[in-house]
Amino acid sequence: MNPPSTFSSGLRHKNMRRRSQSPIPTKKPHDILPPIGDALRIIPLGGVEEIGKNMTAIEYGDEIIVVDAGILFSDDDTPGIDYILPNVKYLEERKDKIKALVITHGHLDHIGGIPYLIGRLGNPPIYTREFGALLIKKRQEEFPHLPALDMRIVDANDKSIPISPNFKVRFFGLTHSIPDSAGIIIETPYGDIFNTGDVRVENENGVPVEKEIEQYKEFKSRNILLFTMDSTGIDKAGFSPSEASILKNIDGIIKDAPGRIIIATFASQAERLIEFFKSARRYGKKIVIEGRSMKTNIDIIKHLNLVDTSDVIPLEDIEKYAPNKIMMISTGAQGEEFAALGRMANKTHKQIKLTRSDTIILSSSVIPGNDRAVERLKDNLFRQDAKVITYLDSDVHTSGHGKRGEIEWIHKQIPYKYFMPVHGSHFRLKMHAELAAALGCPRENIIVPENGSIIEISEGGNKFVKLPVRAPYEDMVVEGLTVGDIPEVVIRDRKMLAADGIFVIIALVNTRNGRLRKSPDIIARGFVYLRESQDLLSEARNVIKRSIESATAGSNPINFDHAKNIVTEDVSRFLFQKTAKKPIVIPVILGV
Amino acid sequence: MNPPSTFSSGLRHKNMRRRSQSPIPTKKPHDILPPIGDALRIIPLGGVEEIGKNMTAIEYGDEIIVVDAGILFSDDDTPGIDYILPNVKYLEERKDKIKALVITHGHLDHIGGIPYLIGRLGNPPIYTREFGALLIKKRQEEFPHLPALDMRIVDANDKSIPISPNFKVRFFGLTHSIPDSAGIIIETPYGDIFNTGDVRVENENGVPVEKEIEQYKEFKSRNILLFTMDSTGIDKAGFSPSEASILKNIDGIIKDAPGRIIIATFASQAERLIEFFKSARRYGKKIVIEGRSMKTNIDIIKHLNLVDTSDVIPLEDIEKYAPNKIMMISTGAQGEEFAALGRMANKTHKQIKLTRSDTIILSSSVIPGNDRAVERLKDNLFRQDAKVITYLDSDVHTSGHGKRGEIEWIHKQIPYKYFMPVHGSHFRLKMHAELAAALGCPRENIIVPENGSIIEISEGGNKFVKLPVRAPYEDMVVEGLTVGDIPEVVIRDRKMLAADGIFVIIALVNTRNGRLRKSPDIIARGFVYLRESQDLLSEARNVIKRSIESATAGSNPINFDHAKNIVTEDVSRFLFQKTAKKPIVIPVILGV
Repeated sequence: MNPPSTFSSGLRHKNMRRRSQSPIPTKKPHDILPPIGDALRIIPLGGVEEIGKNMTAIEYGDEIIVVDAGILFSDDDTPGIDYILPNVKYLEERKDKIKALVITHGHLDHIGGIPYLIGRLGNPPIYTREFGALLIKKRQEEFPHLPALDMRIVDANDKSIPISPNFKVRFFGLTHSIPDSAGIIIETPYGDIFNTGDVRVENENGVPVEKEIEQYKEFKSRNILLFTMDSTGIDKAGFSPSEASILKNIDGIIKDAPGRIIIATFASQAERLIEFFKSARRYGKKIVIEGRSMKTNIDIIKHLNLVDTSDVIPLEDIEKYAPNKIMMISTGAQGEEFAALGRMANKTHKQIKLTRSDTIILSSSVIPGNDRAVERLKDNLFRQDAKVITYLDSDVHTSGHGKRGEIEWIHKQIPYKYFMPVHGSHFRLKMHAELAAALGCPRENIIVPENGSIIEISEGGNKFVKLPVRAPYEDMVVEGLTVGDIPEVVIRDRKMLAADGIFVIIALVNTRNGRLRKSPDIIARGFVYLRESQDLLSEARNVIKRSIESATAGSNPINFDHAKNIVTEDVSRFLFQKTAKKPIVIPVILGV
Repeated sequence: MNPPSTFSSGLRHKNMRRRSQSPIPTKKPHDILPPIGDALRIIPLGGVEEIGKNMTAIEYGDEIIVVDAGILFSDDDTPGIDYILPNVKYLEERKDKIKALVITHGHLDHIGGIPYLIGRLGNPPIYTREFGALLIKKRQEEFPHLPALDMRIVDANDKSIPISPNFKVRFFGLTHSIPDSAGIIIETPYGDIFNTGDVRVENENGVPVEKEIEQYKEFKSRNILLFTMDSTGIDKAGFSPSEASILKNIDGIIKDAPGRIIIATFASQAERLIEFFKSARRYGKKIVIEGRSMKTNIDIIKHLNLVDTSDVIPLEDIEKYAPNKIMMISTGAQGEEFAALGRMANKTHKQIKLTRSDTIILSSSVIPGNDRAVERLKDNLFRQDAKVITYLDSDVHTSGHGKRGEIEWIHKQIPYKYFMPVHGSHFRLKMHAELAAALGCPRENIIVPENGSIIEISEGGNKFVKLPVRAPYEDMVVEGLTVGDIPEVVIRDRKMLAADGIFVIIALVNTRNGRLRKSPDIIARGFVYLRESQDLLSEARNVIKRSIESATAGSNPINFDHAKNIVTEDVSRFLFQKTAKKPIVIPVILGV
């Protein structure tokens, strides 16, 4: 058994991120994690205060199973950061117990953390279905220095796989937007935990199709101890449009396109890509694939023989066919400036010039934060008079995450005792909890977790609590070659630099009399346009000279720290008065 | 007459903003603006490549009328910039001709530029309806050094107001989301120009209400030469929910709230605010106003006696009433961290602590770019278990800008000859042009403008063209106390600083032998967390020393520029190898 660890508790606010490495001054009783005893612990380490970086640990005795290891993409709140990772310190301290990393499906918010985290988890075997396995392998190729992964490819709906004395795992095939998506059923000594992973329900005008009904039938005869489920779409009422209707619409557009058809979508919408291939075949069109991630996913589709890919032609051959015999599948639907469609739109694509007869389908929704980039993309596409069709004009996209109607329907298929919403920001989890309660789950059987929450099931499955102590939960980040805590000081500086810039003063002081040896040097970046601010600069030099010399006057030896403080204050005030800007002012005073 | 001016022409891409002050090397024929002759010129200077900073000039002979003078809020594409303004160089060069600034309504994207621009326009009289006038005055109070404005308050549907020998102006009252909204009818020698300003159509399930039908009746007997119209909602099909239904919904929520009701909306939704007051009166609730802009607008409503405001109580008195007798109207529905609701949500509001019995209505949509902030706001509100109602859950907001169905309906009310879509990004204008064409307007009678486009109507109103030359159109910006061109070099630096930071090297070199006098100083901000990077720093010092001394070795006098280049290159390479980051490296080498 592990000795009890010490953790901080309390709410985390995104606005008030704290650095996690600061030592905790005193240990209060609720900071002490009790020994696990005979409890079953469920610890969501990521994905329950955001949409992204999903990871949940299941612990019993000396055994831990980890489900998913995702990343979250950085936003303007964390400039310069590449990715955000779940905090795995809890697992690092217990890595000898980790028996498996189990993967629900191959999207980056579920597998993207593997290269950065698998070593910290002690390189456990990875259980995954085949499509996910290939995506994991592709990604791992970018990290050639890492040891090979121990991958165990499993089928869905196989018998349960024994992982360790107390855990068995079964992959339950379900509907999302990428092949081989699965929910995970973990058989534990107290009963089964069912984690849906990402899920939607294919339906016709709100009525689930037969395949869905079939799929969930097995739960009629199966009691689930703890149900945990995707909350992404909970804030949208009703059912999403069916994928079949989307594909039918797009098929019609492909059929009728007077010239080239260009479809931009998420490379990760692999199931839809397969259907595009079928449409192209139907109408005798050749296919050009544009964008690296799109090529990767098509390679995997080809490798697995999921569709006949013999209609793919290289971009160079595009001129050999009539425009209406060409279909392009491209990245860039989110307005990414350097993605294939972005380059076509802003006329920097070397081979493809858009024309009035091109039809462009943006088969995706707009991810929050990308709105302005997508507006700019559309502007650029319209400037070239191409015909652009988006999900606002026609049903050309449906989400891989079910809306509230679908979520409710799945709840009704699963006889469960306890419920824990996952995969969503806090308000989504709360809404999902409300739904479960409205459907009859007693409130005391529902827990809304936070990242690092330690949920325990004990007393033969009859007790369900959230411990007052929390596992370390502060974001970890990938920045360049570094993986670590979020560097808050650095982030704060970056935000200040972005808003007001930096103003560095270099002054050489005569140590004998405290006078400046020459006019001070000034380096400013991101502040004002210096070439147009010569007056400001020469006034600033006067302020600096006066300020330093007044600070050094009469003191021997010179108190450099004092002089630095004075000049920082004087110059900051001067610059603010003149410009209403507050650059970071840094004085370098050298005694010579 | 003015001499012909010189302008650059060509498309502008947001991604490739160019600084406008660079001189144009050669004058090509299409760069020369021909004399105006007897043409009527319409020059949209802002608002036709974005939603914001609206401004259009109408010019005939020696007379110019300017409609609106708005701002656009800065986004992450322009860090550190406060506002973006229309480029008014064309007008500055002709300010003696400007007879009037005419204001459609009091929103900031129509009036926000006045303090920065009115002087450049030669302080012409401002014609506006009363509500706009009061908002303009309020804003002007923040600029006490500016001369008083020459404001002429007019009523809607008055007779035409003679502005100058060739121009008369009439304000046409219509429906938007702020009192005293108007379209502007400008009577010119060739016929009438009708600019709708911002507009929606109140309707019941897609059927315009009687008031709307009445309002537009006058156009049955009136021919419009040029119709220009709001394109904001063109990309959304159908009609928006009616304001009446929104108000009914909210009224019901107010009535049934078990505790306090807190409504957050745009302060600019002044018409809706008035109705909230009526609901409060109906259910005997006292009203607390929170947020500066909200207080400003309520002051104006009170001043104009648009509603009885005697139910307003000061925040301090809130405890004197039962919670279900309190209604708060607050700013912050867009997730603004420091707005009233934001402070309540993140528990930094001094007087108001949220409770489980509070009902919070977010009566607004999410402005593109604010998605993440609103998600965070909702998370924080849900953390306090308050009941939150958004436009996703219930009809609690409708836009002030009509959707495509409303736009189409207005088109059908106006018998016009020429059409120019305005108020929208390029793709919206194009979609709006397509709609006009579909409704029967000949394509040659439709012009999609860009900012700075010079549209001419001549030959007795029978010729309608866009000149090949464009007025200066590059964004102007407000940053602190400066109004000017967009400082692209500075913006680029800010983006680099935000991503990778800055690394300044200060080295004292012995001018006799080129050796460093002491270990170099390093100042880094926004790069890596230095306290944890001592090894990196000491290695960097070695690189700097080696690099400078190799560059200075044997050269006398020392070539400082050469040494700086070498050390910049060496240190940049070293830092990239170690961190995969590319900070701005700046060497300061001082010979002593």
